Amino acid sequence: MTCFFCENKKDFILETNYWKVFISPNQTYLGRCFVVLKRHCGDLAELEKVEWEEYVGLVKRLEDALRKTFGAAMFNWTCLMNDAYKKADPDPHVHWNFRPRYGQAVEIGGLIFEDEEFGRHYDNLKNREVNEMVKEIIISRIKEGL
Amino acid sequence: MTCFFCENKKDFILETNYWKVFISPNQTYLGRCFVVLKRHCGDLAELEKVEWEEYVGLVKRLEDALRKTFGAAMFNWTCLMNDAYKKADPDPHVHWNFRPRYGQAVEIGGLIFEDEEFGRHYDNLKNREVNEMVKEIIISRIKEGL
Repeated sequence: MTCFFCENKKDFILETNYWKVFISPNQTYLGRCFVVLKRHCGDLAELEKVEWEEYVGLVKRLEDALRKTFGAAMFNWTCLMNDAYKKADPDPHVHWNFRPRYGQAVEIGGLIFEDEEFGRHYDNLKNREVNEMVKEIIISRIKEGL
Repeated sequence: MTCFFCENKKDFILETNYWKVFISPNQTYLGRCFVVLKRHCGDLAELEKVEWEEYVGLVKRLEDALRKTFGAAMFNWTCLMNDAYKKADPDPHVHWNFRPRYGQAVEIGGLIFEDEEFGRHYDNLKNREVNEMVKEIIISRIKEGL
């Protein structure tokens, strides 16, 4: 059985001892990332102390970077893993969804990113994929901000 | 300015040094709770080490209790605080939304709770309020499981 989060090798922003951070293909909320545990583990309750400690450091680092880089106003953090439970034999992999949220529009590579749901729950049905060039700009801007 | 999370004094399940846990009025996902920081603080990145450590313990305790009590299959954890940003001068209060998710129906006080979105994102627009009697049953069952 393959695991997307174990296998993924592209669009990395950052790697630490226990976590890897890569950009989400869905950029409805500019700078949306996955913060993925490097080992295959299925439940937040099974994280080791050192893994939590490093995650806590990443929360601060990513929030600071996205405030500085794109002017994000606040952040939504979610650990869901629902999709894994579509299968009869679920095999989830702990990862956080990090969605920066914006009170104003941001322009990147000629595209305008506007958070139409600011002040409300994110819209989980919207899917805005960006081309490789724009994705690379987003990644390198975030990296500069880290 | 009043803060709902500072003010709320009812429907408690559990209180620790730094966090209080109370049941959500919205029981679309049976056992949904708020895990609320006891001091008024607006950003996850500003949590103290001891507050994180205690939160980590609560993740395990609540997940274990909900598995045992109602047979929850998995859990969605979200830290959003979007509503606070409806105001011009936002004053958010750190809290986690804890949504147990279920692969089977559960009966409580004559009511059937069914997770119609299991294996998918929770539906944030559904709002199932339960009467005081049912809420008390849910609270006491979770307390027994802790």
